[in-house]
Amino acid sequence: MSDVKKVVLAYSGGLDTSVIVKWLQETYACEVVTFTADIGQGEEVEPARAKAQALGVKEIYIEDLREEFVRDYVYPMFRANTIYEGEYLLGTSIARPLIAKRLIEIANETGADAISHGATGKGNDQVRFELGAYALKPGVKVIAPWREWDLTSREKLMNYCEQHEIPVDFSKSKKKSPYSMDANLLHISYEGGILEDPWAEAEEDMWRWSVSPEAAPDEPTYLELSFEKGDIVAIDGERLKPHEVLSRLNKIGGDNGIGRLDIVENRYVGMKSRGCYETPGGTIMLRAHRAIESITLDREAAHLKDELMPKYAKTIYNGYWWSPERRMLQAAIDETQTFVNGTVRMKLYKGSATVVGRKSEQSLFDESIATFEDDAGAYDQKDAEGFIKLNALRLRIAAGKGRSAS
Amino acid sequence: MSDVKKVVLAYSGGLDTSVIVKWLQETYACEVVTFTADIGQGEEVEPARAKAQALGVKEIYIEDLREEFVRDYVYPMFRANTIYEGEYLLGTSIARPLIAKRLIEIANETGADAISHGATGKGNDQVRFELGAYALKPGVKVIAPWREWDLTSREKLMNYCEQHEIPVDFSKSKKKSPYSMDANLLHISYEGGILEDPWAEAEEDMWRWSVSPEAAPDEPTYLELSFEKGDIVAIDGERLKPHEVLSRLNKIGGDNGIGRLDIVENRYVGMKSRGCYETPGGTIMLRAHRAIESITLDREAAHLKDELMPKYAKTIYNGYWWSPERRMLQAAIDETQTFVNGTVRMKLYKGSATVVGRKSEQSLFDESIATFEDDAGAYDQKDAEGFIKLNALRLRIAAGKGRSAS
Amino acid sequence: MSDVKKVVLAYSGGLDTSVIVKWLQETYACEVVTFTADIGQGEEVEPARAKAQALGVKEIYIEDLREEFVRDYVYPMFRANTIYEGEYLLGTSIARPLIAKRLIEIANETGADAISHGATGKGNDQVRFELGAYALKPGVKVIAPWREWDLTSREKLMNYCEQHEIPVDFSKSKKKSPYSMDANLLHISYEGGILEDPWAEAEEDMWRWSVSPEAAPDEPTYLELSFEKGDIVAIDGERLKPHEVLSRLNKIGGDNGIGRLDIVENRYVGMKSRGCYETPGGTIMLRAHRAIESITLDREAAHLKDELMPKYAKTIYNGYWWSPERRMLQAAIDETQTFVNGTVRMKLYKGSATVVGRKSEQSLFDESIATFEDDAGAYDQKDAEGFIKLNALRLRIAAGKGRSAS
Amino acid sequence: MSDVKKVVLAYSGGLDTSVIVKWLQETYACEVVTFTADIGQGEEVEPARAKAQALGVKEIYIEDLREEFVRDYVYPMFRANTIYEGEYLLGTSIARPLIAKRLIEIANETGADAISHGATGKGNDQVRFELGAYALKPGVKVIAPWREWDLTSREKLMNYCEQHEIPVDFSKSKKKSPYSMDANLLHISYEGGILEDPWAEAEEDMWRWSVSPEAAPDEPTYLELSFEKGDIVAIDGERLKPHEVLSRLNKIGGDNGIGRLDIVENRYVGMKSRGCYETPGGTIMLRAHRAIESITLDREAAHLKDELMPKYAKTIYNGYWWSPERRMLQAAIDETQTFVNGTVRMKLYKGSATVVGRKSEQSLFDESIATFEDDAGAYDQKDAEGFIKLNALRLRIAAGKGRSAS
Repeated sequence: MSDVKKVVLAYSGGLDTSVIVKWLQETYACEVVTFTADIGQGEEVEPARAKAQALGVKEIYIEDLREEFVRDYVYPMFRANTIYEGEYLLGTSIARPLIAKRLIEIANETGADAISHGATGKGNDQVRFELGAYALKPGVKVIAPWREWDLTSREKLMNYCEQHEIPVDFSKSKKKSPYSMDANLLHISYEGGILEDPWAEAEEDMWRWSVSPEAAPDEPTYLELSFEKGDIVAIDGERLKPHEVLSRLNKIGGDNGIGRLDIVENRYVGMKSRGCYETPGGTIMLRAHRAIESITLDREAAHLKDELMPKYAKTIYNGYWWSPERRMLQAAIDETQTFVNGTVRMKLYKGSATVVGRKSEQSLFDESIATFEDDAGAYDQKDAEGFIKLNALRLRIAAGKGRSAS
Repeated sequence: MSDVKKVVLAYSGGLDTSVIVKWLQETYACEVVTFTADIGQGEEVEPARAKAQALGVKEIYIEDLREEFVRDYVYPMFRANTIYEGEYLLGTSIARPLIAKRLIEIANETGADAISHGATGKGNDQVRFELGAYALKPGVKVIAPWREWDLTSREKLMNYCEQHEIPVDFSKSKKKSPYSMDANLLHISYEGGILEDPWAEAEEDMWRWSVSPEAAPDEPTYLELSFEKGDIVAIDGERLKPHEVLSRLNKIGGDNGIGRLDIVENRYVGMKSRGCYETPGGTIMLRAHRAIESITLDREAAHLKDELMPKYAKTIYNGYWWSPERRMLQAAIDETQTFVNGTVRMKLYKGSATVVGRKSEQSLFDESIATFEDDAGAYDQKDAEGFIKLNALRLRIAAGKGRSAS
Repeated sequence: MSDVKKVVLAYSGGLDTSVIVKWLQETYACEVVTFTADIGQGEEVEPARAKAQALGVKEIYIEDLREEFVRDYVYPMFRANTIYEGEYLLGTSIARPLIAKRLIEIANETGADAISHGATGKGNDQVRFELGAYALKPGVKVIAPWREWDLTSREKLMNYCEQHEIPVDFSKSKKKSPYSMDANLLHISYEGGILEDPWAEAEEDMWRWSVSPEAAPDEPTYLELSFEKGDIVAIDGERLKPHEVLSRLNKIGGDNGIGRLDIVENRYVGMKSRGCYETPGGTIMLRAHRAIESITLDREAAHLKDELMPKYAKTIYNGYWWSPERRMLQAAIDETQTFVNGTVRMKLYKGSATVVGRKSEQSLFDESIATFEDDAGAYDQKDAEGFIKLNALRLRIAAGKGRSAS
Repeated sequence: MSDVKKVVLAYSGGLDTSVIVKWLQETYACEVVTFTADIGQGEEVEPARAKAQALGVKEIYIEDLREEFVRDYVYPMFRANTIYEGEYLLGTSIARPLIAKRLIEIANETGADAISHGATGKGNDQVRFELGAYALKPGVKVIAPWREWDLTSREKLMNYCEQHEIPVDFSKSKKKSPYSMDANLLHISYEGGILEDPWAEAEEDMWRWSVSPEAAPDEPTYLELSFEKGDIVAIDGERLKPHEVLSRLNKIGGDNGIGRLDIVENRYVGMKSRGCYETPGGTIMLRAHRAIESITLDREAAHLKDELMPKYAKTIYNGYWWSPERRMLQAAIDETQTFVNGTVRMKLYKGSATVVGRKSEQSLFDESIATFEDDAGAYDQKDAEGFIKLNALRLRIAAGKGRSAS
């Protein structure tokens, strides 16, 4: 284990990753570089500096990645109307590739030969961090303490802290929760505790980002979202950067009880797990994006997107953002967004985000054709007969040869 | 036009199809057989008998197809978690194949050589009726009056009624609505009128099956839905037939403001159209089915279902229920439902139907593996390293050969 | 029919399209512009000028499109390893979009308001021409004489020629063949005649571009094909333009009896039809392209390409080259070809084109890892255990819950 | 390592697996049960009995599985026209699930708690054996000696033999080949040796099952293959069992130089590897099956099969025969084969297997419609106009709104 000289650690400043700093220093006798990013998790990142210093870390990276995160990861993903297993908006999954990329870039800058993270051996995040790392720096050494050490219970961890004089109290806030949580600008997730029984309803006081639908205002909130090339660029006419858009939508959505989700999902490592998620802004964005596409996107492009989406979602969920297949799918998706411009009007009310209007300069909705009124010859109904006849031909031939269709 | 001897007409008893009866008799000098079905549209079908008799029809078929409709069409479709274009639950689409089948069966019974329907030349329904008819009786003659006649305005239609002494008053209720509507046990749809402007919000008094979320009870309603082989067989422990299940869920859902949808969709005939739908029971069923699958269905089967679903939805939307490709997809879907048994607990509240619990004797959720607590060796975290390493191998080789992943 | 002022006709110079010139002039009292292109069909195009002039045509376009055809249509298509229904290399399909595009461009240049072609109402080509034309100039009028006129037999056609003094003898060569044929640089096709019986073997003297395998040389021919970004740029080290590559490969392939195909295919208009094809160069190209991809393309990108290919092939076969979905698929395909560089060595012998070697600077084949010999630690076999264990986890859980896998 | 009591070993009777018997006995101090199957590899299996006895094995299973292999594995796979990565007929992959199943059944019969095999840690076969084993008996212990022991070179293996008095001479025949080979009724494969250089052409004397095209007869061989429900049931009118069909076709195909393949493929464990394969019968079967489908299968069913095939092939290649997703795909595939009946006529000549005729009582090829001659009204060419117009509608609307298609 002596061949690691310097390791870059994804460091939250919390108890677990603080223990990892010490454990890495001890176990590998190597230098540790910490990397702490603000991706919108809602906690200060600057305090991580003092904590890292106290642990003897000399190279400390603290960065605000919120804009990059939403612009280069969240937005491209939403262009595909991405949902995993029909429900999950991939809030955790989409943050990992950015962390992996920065870990590797910092490793290159600092001359580190290894990276490390605090994800467990049962989850998807280890896979996402490590696939990203290997894809970006094939010779990197990855250290996953949770797969290696024997600090497998909270008690052992506490003992380790005591022995190594790691101040335990700085993680007070986290300790209060019986759930394993993860947050970034797109979502906050909850796992563990009573959620391990999929029949048990999540407790109201678990949710942190949204009020309950019951507690939401009795009046609906209306919202106009403007799109350019498939991305939201303005809310109610006010032009905003991507992370500002998402931030704003999280606030408005959360206030209206929007974006709670309670599912059992299939992890890449082979097990099913229960997770609860709050994705207020994302839930609104997804609906709105489908709505703007509904008037601006060609039918067959839309259908092909729908057919590719599950594959694209799985690719991201499983950790393959930095892969040829993700780039390939992204190229197809991005190709379709040129004309996805316009405005969607939404109504938010006690947990529901519903589309009530959509308009676009590039709209393909043609009132003169679709109308029930006289269309002045824009559409010749007689064409339908030939259309149906030829589409039916193969079925008629088969039936004519005695094949029963029913 | 003299070669048609007898035609079976899908007859609603309303004004339009009453005109068609007369027009067929006149234009084709043929006998007309009427077929009126109760598929849960919420109107009495028996009155159609007197109206048909008054028009001189001798062979009158009036049938209650509600059970068959839900059991053999709606339920199989829901096994696939079917949604068209990310939103639409296919309420109209799924009723057409059954009507087409009965039209043809009646044609065979009565010795008719043609069928007819009241769908326009711009919509999907003409396609669905006719593809079904041709697939089931390849030599059948199809008469689509709306594509043939010149009664292209309401005024001309009224004149025709007057000239032919067709009593106009019996269609009072329909006349009140400015919308083109269609209803069956799965949904009610609205098109036309102000909806032709996709930016205009639907008026509250348009909706007929659901209260507005605002008007729904302030207390949530909880529900337990029991599944066998992917189909709901009981509500709150009470065993019900398929159509009773859907009926009950429509009532409960509608009372809680659930199932409203406002979209622009892509028709098979090539245009975009705006539609509003109320699908209270279906909206609950879809959510619940995904939830029971989430604990009972294998991951890869679930993902393959998700990848096939858009194709399956398109097949039904476009009218190809009676086709080899639909049967092929159904075989794949049904194969997966053997173990989709168990109970889902849902909370309905002011427009939202959320899953709060799920359980099953056949659950694949394994608490002992998924747990954050000690799993007593059920899962070896060290396996994850090899798993990741080999999954990363192709990416590492590429990166090692100088291919940049980012 | 008087509203057409000028029509651009895809004019081969043969009997049928000469009749069409006259028929258009008569029926529509409009001016006819002829467009004749050399796309490698192997016949002189210049003689079409005098024939058109003799028919009174004033605007005559004669163009050599061979380079554009192969570079912008054939090559992009081959990047996807495109085959329709497992067999057909789409030789006819891929030429149509270019013809459609030039027809429309010429219509725009000459101020024509219509286009016309000589394809029948039963085939795919009418669809391909017209979909392309409508996609490029939505208001264009399309005239398809074979769907309109009553010259439905050879006899009537001849009578028409006599009446209108159209010289019949210039189509001598065509008349000799009992087959309907179509040729361009990618292939020559045969339909009709005895081929209408799918049990009947094609006669040896039907084939025009290739010798029979039996008549091919007794010695194999070896060939080295060099690729850049998925396209062949050199043969045996000699750099060639795309159409020169294909021309050369047609010659070599045909000499070795390569590229004959005899199939029954499914037309877009709903019927099955028997076709025989000779695609000597294309057959070699397809094999070679797969071979160069086999060492340069990532596995998952390759698999995704394979999954998308049937859809891409159908898109082209059905005539949707000028569509959003084709562009979307092309974007995905082209994204993968950056590193598809290198050389493939092939052996041609009496009808077979087999790959015997492939090499590339960008090869992902890593001998040090794949070797059966000692790999010096490049691959840790122990990783495989974890890889298998986690991939098996879902199957084990299911089996553990009593689900029988067999 | 002491917790294994009895292990069932896939035993070929060759040197490697004989060493494994001894190594298992020594390392695990357990009883070894040997299982040797005739799946058409072309070597006697009975001699394995004496060898096993000499090694002290008490429970010896020797079985002829040829019929089951072809009937229940090869035939179902060929119904899907299965090819991996456009080339490989999955000869090795398809034999593994049967071996895995028998290993587990024998483990259950003999009360064994473990299974073992001689596949290396770099290949696909370990995955296929073990995924199958885990899927069928989730608690089974799998021992993969090549991943555990240190006998990593031929020299060490020989030393081990000497030390343990394992007679080395009985594996003479194998030793002669510089290639790693695997054979069963579907194919024989070659890897390693000079093939590790993908530019090097395979040597002529490597191939064992086929003559070179050059050495094949100068006269073509014609063959008639009769299908029932997608499976070949007779050759030239003679009814045969599945394994007899394949055996016969291997002979005829091999005699005509058919079925050689030389590819670089992507292994599931992440590397590319070069393999050469001889699949004479399978090559003929694949071609013939496509041909019988071409006249009996509906277009959309055929296209859906083509779209699913790569997924199905990957599922088998990667070892997931005993999985829900394979069963799901199989259900879809088998559903389509009801009418795939009829006869295909093929010509075999110096390496090529070409279809020259196909006929069927259930043929969907309708000469009266497809004909270039007068069709007596079977098909109305005017229908094509409406068909094209409506298919073009979305493209026209887009173009009309200023979107350029080119």
